[in-house]
Amino acid sequence: MRFSGNEVNQYVYKFSEGDASMRDLLGGKGAGVAEMTKLGMPVPEGFTITTSACVRYFDDGGKIDEDIKSQIFDALSELQESLGKRLGDPENPLLVSVRSGARVSMPGMMDTILNLGLNRDVVEALGARTGNPRWAWDSYRRFVQMYSDVVMGLDKSRFERAIDDLKRERGVESDTDLTAEDLEGLTDLFLDEYKRQVGRSFPADPVEQLMEAVKAVFRSWNNPRAIYFRRMNSIPDDWGTAVTVQRMVFGNMSADSGTGVAFSRNPSTGVKGLFGEYLMNAQGEDVVSGVRTPQPISHLKDQNPEVFDQFTHIVDKLELHYRDMQDMEFTIEEGKLYMLQTRNGKRTPQAAFRIASDLVDEGILTQEDAVCSIDPKYVTALLHPQFDADALAQGTLLGAGLPTSPGAASGRVVFTAEDAVEWTKRGEQVILVRLDTTPEDIVGMNYAQGVLTARGGMTSHAAVVARGIGRCCVSGVSGIEFSEDAEGNVVGCAIGENVVHEGDWISLDGNTGKVYAGRIATVPASISGAFGRVMGWADRFRRLEVRANADTPRDAAQAREFGAEGIGLVRTEHMFFQEDRITAIREMIVAANEQERRRALDKLLPMQRSDFEALYEAMEGRSVTVRLIDPPLHEFIPKTPEAVAELAAQTGHDTAYIENVVDELREVNPMMGHRGCRLAITYPQIARMQAQAVVEAAINVKRRHPLWSVSPEIMVPLVVNRCELDYIKQQIDQTVGEILAHASDVTMVCQIGTMIETPRAAIRADEIAADAEFFSFGTNDLTQMTFGFSRDDAASFLDDYYDKHILDADPFMHLDRKGVGFLISRAAELGRRTRPNLRLGVCGEHGGDPESIAFCEELGLDYVSCSPYRVPGARLAAAQAVLGRRAPVRR
Amino acid sequence: MRFSGNEVNQYVYKFSEGDASMRDLLGGKGAGVAEMTKLGMPVPEGFTITTSACVRYFDDGGKIDEDIKSQIFDALSELQESLGKRLGDPENPLLVSVRSGARVSMPGMMDTILNLGLNRDVVEALGARTGNPRWAWDSYRRFVQMYSDVVMGLDKSRFERAIDDLKRERGVESDTDLTAEDLEGLTDLFLDEYKRQVGRSFPADPVEQLMEAVKAVFRSWNNPRAIYFRRMNSIPDDWGTAVTVQRMVFGNMSADSGTGVAFSRNPSTGVKGLFGEYLMNAQGEDVVSGVRTPQPISHLKDQNPEVFDQFTHIVDKLELHYRDMQDMEFTIEEGKLYMLQTRNGKRTPQAAFRIASDLVDEGILTQEDAVCSIDPKYVTALLHPQFDADALAQGTLLGAGLPTSPGAASGRVVFTAEDAVEWTKRGEQVILVRLDTTPEDIVGMNYAQGVLTARGGMTSHAAVVARGIGRCCVSGVSGIEFSEDAEGNVVGCAIGENVVHEGDWISLDGNTGKVYAGRIATVPASISGAFGRVMGWADRFRRLEVRANADTPRDAAQAREFGAEGIGLVRTEHMFFQEDRITAIREMIVAANEQERRRALDKLLPMQRSDFEALYEAMEGRSVTVRLIDPPLHEFIPKTPEAVAELAAQTGHDTAYIENVVDELREVNPMMGHRGCRLAITYPQIARMQAQAVVEAAINVKRRHPLWSVSPEIMVPLVVNRCELDYIKQQIDQTVGEILAHASDVTMVCQIGTMIETPRAAIRADEIAADAEFFSFGTNDLTQMTFGFSRDDAASFLDDYYDKHILDADPFMHLDRKGVGFLISRAAELGRRTRPNLRLGVCGEHGGDPESIAFCEELGLDYVSCSPYRVPGARLAAAQAVLGRRAPVRR
Repeated sequence: MRFSGNEVNQYVYKFSEGDASMRDLLGGKGAGVAEMTKLGMPVPEGFTITTSACVRYFDDGGKIDEDIKSQIFDALSELQESLGKRLGDPENPLLVSVRSGARVSMPGMMDTILNLGLNRDVVEALGARTGNPRWAWDSYRRFVQMYSDVVMGLDKSRFERAIDDLKRERGVESDTDLTAEDLEGLTDLFLDEYKRQVGRSFPADPVEQLMEAVKAVFRSWNNPRAIYFRRMNSIPDDWGTAVTVQRMVFGNMSADSGTGVAFSRNPSTGVKGLFGEYLMNAQGEDVVSGVRTPQPISHLKDQNPEVFDQFTHIVDKLELHYRDMQDMEFTIEEGKLYMLQTRNGKRTPQAAFRIASDLVDEGILTQEDAVCSIDPKYVTALLHPQFDADALAQGTLLGAGLPTSPGAASGRVVFTAEDAVEWTKRGEQVILVRLDTTPEDIVGMNYAQGVLTARGGMTSHAAVVARGIGRCCVSGVSGIEFSEDAEGNVVGCAIGENVVHEGDWISLDGNTGKVYAGRIATVPASISGAFGRVMGWADRFRRLEVRANADTPRDAAQAREFGAEGIGLVRTEHMFFQEDRITAIREMIVAANEQERRRALDKLLPMQRSDFEALYEAMEGRSVTVRLIDPPLHEFIPKTPEAVAELAAQTGHDTAYIENVVDELREVNPMMGHRGCRLAITYPQIARMQAQAVVEAAINVKRRHPLWSVSPEIMVPLVVNRCELDYIKQQIDQTVGEILAHASDVTMVCQIGTMIETPRAAIRADEIAADAEFFSFGTNDLTQMTFGFSRDDAASFLDDYYDKHILDADPFMHLDRKGVGFLISRAAELGRRTRPNLRLGVCGEHGGDPESIAFCEELGLDYVSCSPYRVPGARLAAAQAVLGRRAPVRR
Repeated sequence: MRFSGNEVNQYVYKFSEGDASMRDLLGGKGAGVAEMTKLGMPVPEGFTITTSACVRYFDDGGKIDEDIKSQIFDALSELQESLGKRLGDPENPLLVSVRSGARVSMPGMMDTILNLGLNRDVVEALGARTGNPRWAWDSYRRFVQMYSDVVMGLDKSRFERAIDDLKRERGVESDTDLTAEDLEGLTDLFLDEYKRQVGRSFPADPVEQLMEAVKAVFRSWNNPRAIYFRRMNSIPDDWGTAVTVQRMVFGNMSADSGTGVAFSRNPSTGVKGLFGEYLMNAQGEDVVSGVRTPQPISHLKDQNPEVFDQFTHIVDKLELHYRDMQDMEFTIEEGKLYMLQTRNGKRTPQAAFRIASDLVDEGILTQEDAVCSIDPKYVTALLHPQFDADALAQGTLLGAGLPTSPGAASGRVVFTAEDAVEWTKRGEQVILVRLDTTPEDIVGMNYAQGVLTARGGMTSHAAVVARGIGRCCVSGVSGIEFSEDAEGNVVGCAIGENVVHEGDWISLDGNTGKVYAGRIATVPASISGAFGRVMGWADRFRRLEVRANADTPRDAAQAREFGAEGIGLVRTEHMFFQEDRITAIREMIVAANEQERRRALDKLLPMQRSDFEALYEAMEGRSVTVRLIDPPLHEFIPKTPEAVAELAAQTGHDTAYIENVVDELREVNPMMGHRGCRLAITYPQIARMQAQAVVEAAINVKRRHPLWSVSPEIMVPLVVNRCELDYIKQQIDQTVGEILAHASDVTMVCQIGTMIETPRAAIRADEIAADAEFFSFGTNDLTQMTFGFSRDDAASFLDDYYDKHILDADPFMHLDRKGVGFLISRAAELGRRTRPNLRLGVCGEHGGDPESIAFCEELGLDYVSCSPYRVPGARLAAAQAVLGRRAPVRR
């Protein structure tokens, strides 16, 4: 018992006591019926047991405490009194539904029990009194079946088989063709089966039925599908579900009874107007089961104009009241309309924008409201082609992984990046299937329609690259086994029980993570006018600048199209994997002396310069931040004997020499090895070459476009102290100074900043800021080092962490505020203390994550930078962060 | 020019203006002569140019600023005036020495110039006036030679060849047999050679000579051997050297002149009494060069009792004054004694303890002073056998690496851990030579006399393990190349230009990092009674508890012998590599299901239990902290095809299955992978088995020794948040609770604590402390993650970091106060806020490092834990930390 002074916690609320604001306590369902009750709408009476009661149920080891019980009984008594009906009273029985309802909609994830309160006495009396014994027995049959399943977890198949057997025996097709006697016999069979499986009789006491049903609904919060759903949607496990107990009304009681569901607007297109379907003389489950074909909601106008008018009036009122498109359930009992539920309706991304835009025009929403009404995830989905829904329904599912980069793609399977290039060049459409990807695979990924990897999570190499280049990607598909031919080439793979060979067609859904056999038709991305309109409002409201991570002119152009205000991160090494460059970079790496190294760098210089020129051109004067080479050099060197031989031939060294270089470059923990600015410390020539390329490119572009603002920004990765930055800054300053001295026609300031991506850099940010004009938080690496979680390896244990509630969410997906966030916040504060105008941003994958963007806004950072396809979502999220409102979770 | 208000910085001090406290400014030499001057001792007059002047010299780009110059000239004028002599004045010439002198002694690392002020006119006048032209010409010859070398950097060999040629020509053996004319001719040759090499005449102007000499001494601060010496001794590069200019006195002027060096006590044994040697009619360099054999200092008593008495009187006074053994240089000029230098003398570890102990008895030092007078590094050296110094002098040096574990060892070379075991079992003494070591090599390392690795630094696997088990180890020997036979077995290696084959004898010096060919005799560790006495004082003064990291009963016994008060870290996995255990742990890892895993754990349980019992027995009731299994599981699984086949046979799985397990366990960055408590999250059965073994062992030992305090302490590694600890604590509590419930005869409390070794754990320490009774800072991992430096890989770039002054010291050797230290300090504060009696310690390698121990004392931690051989040094350092005084750096 929890007392606060003399006050007892309230665990049960009558509908008339609640309202829409009490969603956290009453759940979506309970808050909805309470609000409708308050609005004077026809809602069957009832009460809601709160989510707190559910939490206590679990805290108390799976029992309902006496104080909660007594509150339930009080509410029940009051309900019975007001209705003049009693549970289990054959003269005037009260029947109730017992429904789950969480704070956010978790459709179909938890349990519901209808027709509770029936037993043999009640059924018989009810059949006699209504003159409809068939209905009475059918209701009882349904209740026994549902209770056995939901409350007792009995094997459903025996019940279903009994119905099928009886129908066969009677020679009828449909349940509705069974007579009252048939249904009575069937119910008896069910009751026997219950007793056989449970070991005691089906409870006749409706109060016992009720309490068991309430517990079963509480328990359903933790059934596997509900847990899975929460994990997928970042819903905390400790919220619990409310339970709503409501007087039953019956759509299957008579010909003028019925039931239906409706949306106030078309959830696919967003077009205004009632959209839904109904079925007369039916219960809700009949609409769903598909045995009888429901009618479009518009037909109700002819069938019962009075009810239809009343309903449309209610719909308008609800939409205006909730200021959003509504998804409603209703029942007509003997010609009288009852509202059973209303909630903000789920909708397609297209519809979301259309509805938001229309609601502003209709004066229902402000522009701010409209911006906040859209889940930023929707935005990304809009930018990619999608599978045709009908074609998808026909597809054969092969397996599923994480939806690591959105979109939809079909292609023929290849197992190497080289094949992806070759096959595409000869006109094929391919899907690249790999254990995981490495930087060497980038060109192949670029050619492929989509990428499938057996390993890796949301921030694996494959995922990051795929999102960056807008390729659909599915990662971490468990159960993939590769088969090799005699030479060790992969020639096929098993995905679960299906085998896929090279050249077979498969299809990837980057929005769901599902993998299908064969080729599935897609529909192109369709961005309605509403999209641009709402995004325009978002841009007006947001404070954070939104930049893109882009490595190629194509990425940059894409980013600009998506509204990026600059490039926050150019990963120069991504350019190195192009065929002409990779040879030069390898020559540089295997150089035996300073002279060879310089020669190789001299080859790279013009290539890098032209790369940067193209980026500046693509960005038309917007700012471009170039990061110095970051990955360990061994990433550029192939390790197979053939490749070593080839490299030896290219560079004029012998293979033993190359093998030795490869050997020496090998690292035990490359993520914490010789990379980032550590390369520039060892090989300052590389930093100088890159600085030269950046500044010469900027000068060339500035000369061509004198009105553009072209200011080179060079970013130093992975620093741990001020001295590193200072040393490299000297190299850059000297190089840049010499170049600018010879370009007197151009006025240009080169800014030098640093990434803050080691914990130490964050801790010593005050010193580091003395040498840095901007900080870009590399939250991927910072997360890795703060947790000691390797992105590449953590997937192997993170599932256990979620299962055991040790982590709520993937820290690589949503910024860990308490740990990594502490370091960012400290660094921001210390950095600005040293340099008040220090520019601060985030360029890790978190830069595109709405939750993380909200945190960046709280910290007052200046910008976020993310992959081009996440830019529009980031713009929206940044606006929402300013407006202080998060979009509702609808998925 | 640097002004502070109207005040000009003082860059030059007369001897009479300085004293011993001004060592930082005047250098050791300058402070010493100033102090002796102040004490009224006979010191030739002069002045010292400060270390600040040197720093300015470098800041100003290698020139001496006008204000410093004018201060030098002023001091020179005053000196000339007081002596009535002038530089370059043939009538009464002043000759000076120009000597380097840093804050701490850097013997022989920097340059010195003697006899400055000579030119042809002065020499001739001097020869005539003293009637000793031979001396005059010899002095000039020496000066020209020294100036050419030190100031101009000319090739020395030509000068030396000229002397040899002349001696051959004259048919004499010794320089002293050359006549004044010979020496004049030789000097002319030198002057010609100078002009030839430099392109202009040797400077005749003594003031020019002086200024060039001062600059040369400044520059010698940055000569390669000085830089190397500073790196080895953690001396900051920005201190600079002072320059002392002093009137020359001449030990080679007459038969009653002479020069010598002496210690106030025997620097090898510490025995009280004058110890040293001298040579009449000679200059200092003659004593060192070995051309003439110097006499023991005691002979001076007969030769010149007056001077001897004066000298012994001065020595006693100096020792009493400095309260330490003194190392002095003196010169006798025509029967008159001059003191040229005094400083605290270097000594062997044995001598250090003897001297400290004696000085207390003599009432010169307090016990506190004595404790603070000893460098903790000395202690470790005392615990290991050492090479016989004479034998070592004969040895052939093969190469050198880092001295990663002290001691001296000779043995025959083997290249695999298996061979180390096998050869030793058949009676051989072996040195294990590896590229680097892995946990699989531990047994072999244990059998070997010493370990040599081509890779790795002070905290590499080889180093950590070797120190832990007291094996001598040399790591990171560059230039080692292994050669293999046709089957890929290593059969030999080249160290530089020498080739070593399997079975060849080599010797390792773990105190210097040097590797010698052949077998070198050793002398056993000799710990005098003074050692125990001083350590006893240290124990009384220190506040920090000192524990040991020990994994076996043998380690534990060793640790106890060295004064460990408990075991702060048992790495349970080290036991797993023993033959009987490794099979069981591998069975556990490859278990296909829960049942197989449980079966394997059931096999491990009694082994672990008996391991822990033996540890408790060895520690006789002192506390023992057991860490749950920490390394990634793949460390236990061999990867070669043969080993996989063997494991398959042992476990009854097929090889493909084992290969698949190996494959799945493989990690890109194992240091940040599936290890530490992450293993216990995935496999809670392992944590439960280990907890059971710990507690059952404790109960058994407690029953045998009821008076011992046996309280199990279980430590959870690598947490990132409270939930991990909470989950594992539940597993342990449940297991332990059940066991204790059945052992009602024993009263026992099991403490559960955690390592703080991820940055996140430090940041969230307040939450974590809610579940932890103690924190042990795992500073190795914490340093890795805070810097993003992999211990295994950082060696490849850290040298560049030192060369470029980006890091002063290896953060794995000395705790990084500003970065890692911030996290420790924060965690300590937050942790204690949650739990005021939280026990705090360090169990990384830093736990044995005096600098880091001082930091632990500052933070008020409760204990440090280090490898057994570092325990006595840690005890001493902990006392020094309390006393707030660091031992002088003498090496």
